[in-house]
Amino acid sequence: MIIVLKPGVTPAEIKHIKEQLKKKKLKAHEMPGVGRTVIAAIGDTTTVSEQWLEAIPGVEKVERIQKPYKLVSRETVKENSIFKVGKETIGGNKLCVMAGPCSVESLAGLMQVAGEVKKAGAKFLRGGAFKPRTSPYAFQGHGEGGLKWLAEAKKKTGLLIVTELMDPRDTEIVERYSDVIQIGTRNMQNFSLLKEVGKTRKPVLLKRGLAATIKEFLMSAEYIMSEGNHEVIFCERGIRTFETYTRNTLDLSAIPALKKESHLPVIVDPSHATGKRDFVAPMALAAIAAGADGLMIEVHSDPEKAWSDGEQSLKPDAFAKLMVEMRAVAKAVGRSI
Amino acid sequence: MIIVLKPGVTPAEIKHIKEQLKKKKLKAHEMPGVGRTVIAAIGDTTTVSEQWLEAIPGVEKVERIQKPYKLVSRETVKENSIFKVGKETIGGNKLCVMAGPCSVESLAGLMQVAGEVKKAGAKFLRGGAFKPRTSPYAFQGHGEGGLKWLAEAKKKTGLLIVTELMDPRDTEIVERYSDVIQIGTRNMQNFSLLKEVGKTRKPVLLKRGLAATIKEFLMSAEYIMSEGNHEVIFCERGIRTFETYTRNTLDLSAIPALKKESHLPVIVDPSHATGKRDFVAPMALAAIAAGADGLMIEVHSDPEKAWSDGEQSLKPDAFAKLMVEMRAVAKAVGRSI
Amino acid sequence: MIIVLKPGVTPAEIKHIKEQLKKKKLKAHEMPGVGRTVIAAIGDTTTVSEQWLEAIPGVEKVERIQKPYKLVSRETVKENSIFKVGKETIGGNKLCVMAGPCSVESLAGLMQVAGEVKKAGAKFLRGGAFKPRTSPYAFQGHGEGGLKWLAEAKKKTGLLIVTELMDPRDTEIVERYSDVIQIGTRNMQNFSLLKEVGKTRKPVLLKRGLAATIKEFLMSAEYIMSEGNHEVIFCERGIRTFETYTRNTLDLSAIPALKKESHLPVIVDPSHATGKRDFVAPMALAAIAAGADGLMIEVHSDPEKAWSDGEQSLKPDAFAKLMVEMRAVAKAVGRSI
Amino acid sequence: MIIVLKPGVTPAEIKHIKEQLKKKKLKAHEMPGVGRTVIAAIGDTTTVSEQWLEAIPGVEKVERIQKPYKLVSRETVKENSIFKVGKETIGGNKLCVMAGPCSVESLAGLMQVAGEVKKAGAKFLRGGAFKPRTSPYAFQGHGEGGLKWLAEAKKKTGLLIVTELMDPRDTEIVERYSDVIQIGTRNMQNFSLLKEVGKTRKPVLLKRGLAATIKEFLMSAEYIMSEGNHEVIFCERGIRTFETYTRNTLDLSAIPALKKESHLPVIVDPSHATGKRDFVAPMALAAIAAGADGLMIEVHSDPEKAWSDGEQSLKPDAFAKLMVEMRAVAKAVGRSI
Repeated sequence: MIIVLKPGVTPAEIKHIKEQLKKKKLKAHEMPGVGRTVIAAIGDTTTVSEQWLEAIPGVEKVERIQKPYKLVSRETVKENSIFKVGKETIGGNKLCVMAGPCSVESLAGLMQVAGEVKKAGAKFLRGGAFKPRTSPYAFQGHGEGGLKWLAEAKKKTGLLIVTELMDPRDTEIVERYSDVIQIGTRNMQNFSLLKEVGKTRKPVLLKRGLAATIKEFLMSAEYIMSEGNHEVIFCERGIRTFETYTRNTLDLSAIPALKKESHLPVIVDPSHATGKRDFVAPMALAAIAAGADGLMIEVHSDPEKAWSDGEQSLKPDAFAKLMVEMRAVAKAVGRSI
Repeated sequence: MIIVLKPGVTPAEIKHIKEQLKKKKLKAHEMPGVGRTVIAAIGDTTTVSEQWLEAIPGVEKVERIQKPYKLVSRETVKENSIFKVGKETIGGNKLCVMAGPCSVESLAGLMQVAGEVKKAGAKFLRGGAFKPRTSPYAFQGHGEGGLKWLAEAKKKTGLLIVTELMDPRDTEIVERYSDVIQIGTRNMQNFSLLKEVGKTRKPVLLKRGLAATIKEFLMSAEYIMSEGNHEVIFCERGIRTFETYTRNTLDLSAIPALKKESHLPVIVDPSHATGKRDFVAPMALAAIAAGADGLMIEVHSDPEKAWSDGEQSLKPDAFAKLMVEMRAVAKAVGRSI
Repeated sequence: MIIVLKPGVTPAEIKHIKEQLKKKKLKAHEMPGVGRTVIAAIGDTTTVSEQWLEAIPGVEKVERIQKPYKLVSRETVKENSIFKVGKETIGGNKLCVMAGPCSVESLAGLMQVAGEVKKAGAKFLRGGAFKPRTSPYAFQGHGEGGLKWLAEAKKKTGLLIVTELMDPRDTEIVERYSDVIQIGTRNMQNFSLLKEVGKTRKPVLLKRGLAATIKEFLMSAEYIMSEGNHEVIFCERGIRTFETYTRNTLDLSAIPALKKESHLPVIVDPSHATGKRDFVAPMALAAIAAGADGLMIEVHSDPEKAWSDGEQSLKPDAFAKLMVEMRAVAKAVGRSI
Repeated sequence: MIIVLKPGVTPAEIKHIKEQLKKKKLKAHEMPGVGRTVIAAIGDTTTVSEQWLEAIPGVEKVERIQKPYKLVSRETVKENSIFKVGKETIGGNKLCVMAGPCSVESLAGLMQVAGEVKKAGAKFLRGGAFKPRTSPYAFQGHGEGGLKWLAEAKKKTGLLIVTELMDPRDTEIVERYSDVIQIGTRNMQNFSLLKEVGKTRKPVLLKRGLAATIKEFLMSAEYIMSEGNHEVIFCERGIRTFETYTRNTLDLSAIPALKKESHLPVIVDPSHATGKRDFVAPMALAAIAAGADGLMIEVHSDPEKAWSDGEQSLKPDAFAKLMVEMRAVAKAVGRSI
């Protein structure tokens, strides 16, 4: 760590700072002549926080040199991680496509859309049985009933199931019925939930928080991995900015950023990011061109009857057409679907 | 609700839209001549979402006229809500001051700072036993042990206890040891937790999410109230913006905004908002001038030894000085402390 | 316009509001039963601002139905606009590629990079003679000397010239030397400059402001068009958000958004958006997949010697490689370069 | 400057980096053992940009130790700067209050409001003769005619005049008629205009850009000062965030931030920041409590007849009442009005 001291720092303060570093088993190396007194703290700094150092009198700011994450880091694992899920893989040359309704509404409706997305080429069925909703008066999901319908859809179509876990008390049941456990945007820093899902043995699809930085996103994956579950998939789904034309602002530069910092796969959800059906296709194609390892797309047989997110759901025929276009772009960048 | 239709909408689409509204028991009133076809949906629209309507072909956008929240609304309760906690009140003319360390680190340290903030005039002791931390490798709090130390501090000083609940499984124990239950920033939309705390009978201090709009903040309070707990206190603690000079950007205009929309009390946490010790005093005074009902301030007897947030904690003497200044500003705006 | 009145509005206030509308030659149509009193203002509302209406007692909020822009609107011109520049076109099926250094530094350097980008297939040479710099102590550009070097580069290579205008007093000289006049990010709402460039007869490349909404971006193009110059090209170049990993956040959903609202071409600048050389290629490919009509890319023969923006400039060989990849993605989405 | 090198940097790259530093007359001091190779660049780094260094192969990131601004810096001038304007001062213990209409609409209207704000205690009359408007079809100001009316109002009332300059070609005329020249939000980084106003001899009120960081705000003041005009006043007027409840988000922590970094005065404009008449008073009082040196407030005798910004203008009686409240809060923090 590099510790920049305040102008006018006293020798007593410098001595005190060095003593504090020594207690943390860090060597202090004073650097001359850069316009300020600067101390390099040498040793293992992973357990030392910038905030702690900045609280010591005389310290102006602290710059961390080593990354605060380890398990997620590209420096720890050089090659891209590839996870095996059923007969499919996530993270390899072949892109994974997860499609289905926002929420599981009825068995019949789910079976219909499952059949349709399978026919178009998706290998994963997404659908929420537990739904985080802004209003307490909105439909909150069918809970375990919804999970059972997902299981039936899997049995019939062979599609792998991706579904959201919202409450640590539901971990066991969600793990049982899902192939990939989704952690939603509003729970990206629900640390109790991250720890719980880190103890499961199912891959975790971690959605980026509305205002989460790339670094915080990496740290949340580190939480899950630090509990023993090494199969984490990042999902970029739009961040909150001043722009209200789209529901959120899809940050596709997060793809090369996460790929640079980490070995974990990165997929993109253009449906929640844009909130507009017409924008899903261009953003899905852009995600592939930018290097995404897969896509999560909302599909509903009858979007205007959807209980949530109908305005951003594709109809099955539009999804099938998009799959054709996605294959073309994937091929152009040396990937397949 | 006002439903603006797309240019070129067909008569068949208009007919279909009206049928859909009828199914929801809403009357459709077509408005002439505003450059577009516009339909007013008349009736109880609280269970109808804008998203559902926007998914129907021919609909361009939907404007809600009625508020989506009821229990929190100033239209429901005209007078300011005042909550009784022990011998203190929150929401009345007298401001409440909550002070103490970010996290409960040791019994001795807690007792010391409790004595000091009490002497300066605070009536509530804040301190975290369960700590949400960005890194899994950082100190996560002493858990129940920390709660017990808070109880001892209360016993000795008479200070009322404010402490954070992070996991629905800890609700019972946190409710037992606290006078006010805090829901943290990262959990403002942890809907499982909101429902759980809504079933308790302790006032809830709800911190604003990093990227939460005023409307979402109100909706999260509505979640708690809809479960039966009507004592919710808003806490503005800074939002995430492009500005990195301060840790977050304190949005003091949230005070008149929340006061206009709701009857619930509003307090301000300048410590987490600014992340800088020197900025706590000016922002605390500004909050009072803007109409806040109270303040939550981090105080630590030895900030550089704090295990978290030392750089933004006031020393007891600085806090005592601030209390004097706060009293002067409170008096200038017709309030007291 | 839809005017929602406050709860408790008086009959006298309603009468007054209607009189005000009448003065603006708008008919007032009162709508029953949507939970509030709502008035529809019927007639030409383009000269009436929401702000004016919201200042009248009793008015809560105003929703505009008609768009505030006309000339840029897709409703005015249904087909995509295509501009002829020299032998090239902007806005058609063929994508335009603008490449070159951030700033014009020397004649020799410019000639070298011009030859290289031409060889790789670019048809436009970009380079700044007037440079907007955050610091007054940084290199501010060679001014007219730089424009003359651009003219020499054009003479030798046939590349069309894109260069920035910063000051209305330089309009005549920049118009003389350029084929496309660039208005920079920081000047997107420099209305004096927009009016001035609206009087020229060269296409204008209008860069999106750091915090400009899609609507404001459209309005700034409207400024230029309202002065008589109908050839405006939008350039998305990243917006400012809380994320600091990249210099800005490239908002690729702006492409379908602008295409939906307007008939004007849209190009993308991935170099300024990301600020990182490694991210330029994935974002350039993503822009094409999302439907962009062209790209503006910084290329420098020796980036580490660049006087500005070296860290985001591609070397000529990397640019040539990217051109090959861009052609593949363009072909996959039915376009060409 | 501290230069952090990439993992796996080669000795040849390190040698090359050191040579580049030597060319800039900087000594390179290699630091051992902080987990990465780190080089301290020693000497005058003000003309070296982080971007230039980050473009050199092997460099990962660069941390500047010395501030990039000089003239505005609190390190250069320790004491608060106080400017004399007519018989008034800006920056001292006494707060300055600037009040008046958004735009100058008529001589009669201006004279009326001037008389009223003077009576309430304001010493400065604000009013725009040149108006930056988002739409080209909105009222653009009366230009020189408006300036002459301001001069008449000054003659009659003795109020000092604050008015906006938008175009470098109008500098001479605006300087002639004004006591303080305002640079608007959208022009904070209009560098041509900053240089021009830096050559005048009138104090400059510099409004913060919608998405300008504190550092950029300081750098824009440095632009003006570097041309010879040392009388710059910062004006915080709200930044653009995700929150749309208020027009902008007033960042009151900018007051202590600017005061810490600079010796220049800081005033606050709560009218443009909130865009809501009801929020002007609480935010004005908060600004004073936070340490502002003055306020700029929109006042209009008949807000609903205002040609711009009526919804945020106070009526004269509300302004007079606010002045009384502001005096009370100013007194509570040891200031006067």
